[in-house]
Amino acid sequence: MELNLELAQQVLAAQPFSVLVGARVTAFGDGGATLELDIRDELRQQNGFLHGGVLAYAADNAITFAGGTALGADVLTGGFTISYLRPAKGLVLRAEARVAHSSRRQATCTCELTTLDESGTITLCAIAQGTVIARR
Amino acid sequence: MELNLELAQQVLAAQPFSVLVGARVTAFGDGGATLELDIRDELRQQNGFLHGGVLAYAADNAITFAGGTALGADVLTGGFTISYLRPAKGLVLRAEARVAHSSRRQATCTCELTTLDESGTITLCAIAQGTVIARR
Amino acid sequence: MELNLELAQQVLAAQPFSVLVGARVTAFGDGGATLELDIRDELRQQNGFLHGGVLAYAADNAITFAGGTALGADVLTGGFTISYLRPAKGLVLRAEARVAHSSRRQATCTCELTTLDESGTITLCAIAQGTVIARR
Amino acid sequence: MELNLELAQQVLAAQPFSVLVGARVTAFGDGGATLELDIRDELRQQNGFLHGGVLAYAADNAITFAGGTALGADVLTGGFTISYLRPAKGLVLRAEARVAHSSRRQATCTCELTTLDESGTITLCAIAQGTVIARR
Repeated sequence: MELNLELAQQVLAAQPFSVLVGARVTAFGDGGATLELDIRDELRQQNGFLHGGVLAYAADNAITFAGGTALGADVLTGGFTISYLRPAKGLVLRAEARVAHSSRRQATCTCELTTLDESGTITLCAIAQGTVIARR
Repeated sequence: MELNLELAQQVLAAQPFSVLVGARVTAFGDGGATLELDIRDELRQQNGFLHGGVLAYAADNAITFAGGTALGADVLTGGFTISYLRPAKGLVLRAEARVAHSSRRQATCTCELTTLDESGTITLCAIAQGTVIARR
Repeated sequence: MELNLELAQQVLAAQPFSVLVGARVTAFGDGGATLELDIRDELRQQNGFLHGGVLAYAADNAITFAGGTALGADVLTGGFTISYLRPAKGLVLRAEARVAHSSRRQATCTCELTTLDESGTITLCAIAQGTVIARR
Repeated sequence: MELNLELAQQVLAAQPFSVLVGARVTAFGDGGATLELDIRDELRQQNGFLHGGVLAYAADNAITFAGGTALGADVLTGGFTISYLRPAKGLVLRAEARVAHSSRRQATCTCELTTLDESGTITLCAIAQGTVIARR
């Protein structure tokens, strides 16, 4: 199945964990996908920052959706690497993933995770890299 | 601050996201830490399996706690790599992380993520590797 | 093609870069493969330690061969992650890779890199994790 | 010690393994470093492509030098992840690494590995991401 933004949003809405976290797909296509979520208290760790697990979730899912732009809807993520750069805080977390290369069976993607704060400042807080596999 | 199992449980309880996910620390010390969570509907993806983001959260946090056994409470995770091996399903997800090596400033940890099903079968569903950094 | 230790040694001998580095396969089968090389001056970095690139080469190749125990000879490595733990020195570098899980198409492997010194002491100096893909 | 291109070239020349491989630093500064090497028969694997271990070496070292633009000469690489995208062939391998973020103690870098062939075509063949640590 070919995906577009509307279908990608339906897939995300069908993921109970993404609903629990409060994620939304805000861009999909042209070899990339963007996920966003509002930073709310339930998503923090003990020091008030966004929990690293939320960033990891966002990287995983943005990479999976980006892979879906190349491989279609029936994909699974083989794995990914995330490097945390700065504590994440602000209003919104944005995970922008792009396909670096894809074959018929596999897509390798990179992802930048940024936060947007009250003043409109965008801060890079993590980078990730991962592989998506077509289930055929 | 030195950590023990009781203090590790207090740290986890102070992480709103870990409370939202429903994680618990079940072992802490001797260079390792174990996190568990009950697999419930809210944590699934669209095909009924545990969402990869939940496994990534569990790997991240188990690695952080394992690093804490070597470095104390004031740590942050620099990053990690996770490889998904099988779709995760069953009753319980367990993330067991161990310190492979630590210096004064940094600990490198591995993590095995297994599921436990109704029949008591344990299935390896992901492996991870990451680095924890002492903040001072 | 099914591989055994003798065939694995022939594959390694057919890799000019492995000949340049001076690697040998010392174990192959039962879901694992071991590569060794003598630590000689040509393989060092500027401080006299084994160059990280040599450890990375050994991890890459040991993981590929381990994947070959599960998937046969016609494989390629999709990627890997290596964490350096200690400066590597001594007489011999050993990279022991094991298959953590394999499907028909893909094998995920872990690898421990140790050095052996004059006194027989074995020191863990890096760990790695990677994915091997069957080409057909 | 602050580094510049000339000093970076001296550091590379002091790495016997980089001399064996035949690497050169062609750019250094402004948060990035580029390593190049001529693809010659000694660096291949059994199918005639550049050995994955050479790409891994180049990623490791380019990341280390990029980290050195932010942290100075006394650094070591904590680890890295490489994803192979296509078999590497042609005349020259180029590894371009950039600092995504650095603190006083640590720099996280990305790296693109491309080949240049006879016709001047540039092909992306691997991407990498890694962490460099100041030894102070």
